[in-house]
Amino acid sequence: MSLIKIIEILAILISAFSGFIEARSKKMDVVGVFTVAFITAFGGGTLRDILLDKRPLFWVTHQEYAILIFLLALVAAPVIRTLRKIASERLIVIADALGLGLFSIAGVSEALIAGMPLFIASMMGVITGIFGGILRDVICNEIPMVLRDGRPYAICSFAGCWMYLLMQKAGVPPDFALWSSALAICGLRLATWVKGIRLD
Amino acid sequence: MSLIKIIEILAILISAFSGFIEARSKKMDVVGVFTVAFITAFGGGTLRDILLDKRPLFWVTHQEYAILIFLLALVAAPVIRTLRKIASERLIVIADALGLGLFSIAGVSEALIAGMPLFIASMMGVITGIFGGILRDVICNEIPMVLRDGRPYAICSFAGCWMYLLMQKAGVPPDFALWSSALAICGLRLATWVKGIRLD
Amino acid sequence: MSLIKIIEILAILISAFSGFIEARSKKMDVVGVFTVAFITAFGGGTLRDILLDKRPLFWVTHQEYAILIFLLALVAAPVIRTLRKIASERLIVIADALGLGLFSIAGVSEALIAGMPLFIASMMGVITGIFGGILRDVICNEIPMVLRDGRPYAICSFAGCWMYLLMQKAGVPPDFALWSSALAICGLRLATWVKGIRLD
Repeated sequence: MSLIKIIEILAILISAFSGFIEARSKKMDVVGVFTVAFITAFGGGTLRDILLDKRPLFWVTHQEYAILIFLLALVAAPVIRTLRKIASERLIVIADALGLGLFSIAGVSEALIAGMPLFIASMMGVITGIFGGILRDVICNEIPMVLRDGRPYAICSFAGCWMYLLMQKAGVPPDFALWSSALAICGLRLATWVKGIRLD
Repeated sequence: MSLIKIIEILAILISAFSGFIEARSKKMDVVGVFTVAFITAFGGGTLRDILLDKRPLFWVTHQEYAILIFLLALVAAPVIRTLRKIASERLIVIADALGLGLFSIAGVSEALIAGMPLFIASMMGVITGIFGGILRDVICNEIPMVLRDGRPYAICSFAGCWMYLLMQKAGVPPDFALWSSALAICGLRLATWVKGIRLD
Repeated sequence: MSLIKIIEILAILISAFSGFIEARSKKMDVVGVFTVAFITAFGGGTLRDILLDKRPLFWVTHQEYAILIFLLALVAAPVIRTLRKIASERLIVIADALGLGLFSIAGVSEALIAGMPLFIASMMGVITGIFGGILRDVICNEIPMVLRDGRPYAICSFAGCWMYLLMQKAGVPPDFALWSSALAICGLRLATWVKGIRLD
């Protein structure tokens, strides 16, 4: 299996996992757990594709991901317990940062292909990276965490999306631009997390 | 008027009615009552059509339903009183179960026509059946009932959608597959309601 | 700069401004302030375009508005303080009423061009006028103000949209129909505000 495929699956699973946890903390049943996990994992990319009018959606052409989340939702309670045991907070933050980088750069690159102007393309990258979590919080009746916790999360995505756009403009090879920007987002996120940096 | 038309109108009215009740319980005005009733009745099908990129939307080609809900919203308070008098809880549950069956099977069959893979098609059926209620609860600032009450509702829809998909695969005549699956959802929902079955 | 351009920018800024205020009152950070302001300003028109399946979206072809809101969000705290000093409540209500009129008539006229039937076209006008505020309140975890405060707001939009539709049918010159209806919505809104009229 290629590296990108592994990271992709990891990013989707981490998103779904954060949906599992929030749904359980709201005492949702198995239907709620699946719905919230699914929306967290695919909400950002789906919103981007609807705004760009792009079809078919990612999870429609790759129904194996939907089925995987479905099967995990059926065993959510023991899955959460096990994952909590083997996954330290550090591991979760690292995987989540990788997911943020990958989702964001996938989003900005899709938007460029669709002919979006630069600022809009950068917004599409951030939307892909953070809107799954926003929709998760809206459906769980919470003010979205990413909009109020004052930690640099969307900002890291935004910075990395611009890095990608500028590298594209400068004629950097596409693959290198993509991977280095995704890693930059991941690194930036981890650095601000380690340092405990907060915005106003 | 054909039987399917009558059930369709009944399903839409029942959905709208549950929107009326929730909007009034939140002390909304006439604008809120109409908006919430409309979203409850058409939200599920509209979300499905946006995901499938299908237009025109059902309520656009059948504006008579929108007008009907508009007129009912103008007289919501007395309408709710009267309906509560003539409609026992049993009648409401039966009509709602009929609506769930009809909406779900309409959703899964639309998704098949649009070429969706099987699992995604079953999800589209469930989305059509339950997302009107989810959007109603989100706009009324509640955690969606269907995601947390632990009663088999989405599950009945899901089971019936697969019954339809398998009958289609097996070459059962389309009309028979459609009606028997819709009735199966309705029957399953009523059986679990009578027995008081709960999920975890 | 043409008059319509000035009003358009004013309407967008006023919507964004109401988003700024609500986001700050929820203690959101700069990401939240931008997101909520953007959704308030463009949410109604975006929802209409998704329902009509029209692309590119307004803010995609006019990215200068997105950039403007972005820059204002960076300085939201002092901006809000300054605007509150120079903008009396009266001025805000007048600008908001102008925005409601302009957004609504833009919406109904887009819907007519897209071939919508009359009642649906009037709904699209109202959606364009009020859904930005509804989405703002949903994301801020509040029951939408416009659905429950009992003040004629959506109703003014609805009445003006029908005035526009009837003038179109009657063969009134398009420009005159557009401007007089937009002004009628604005006037109606201001009149009901001055008189303190409330619905049930």
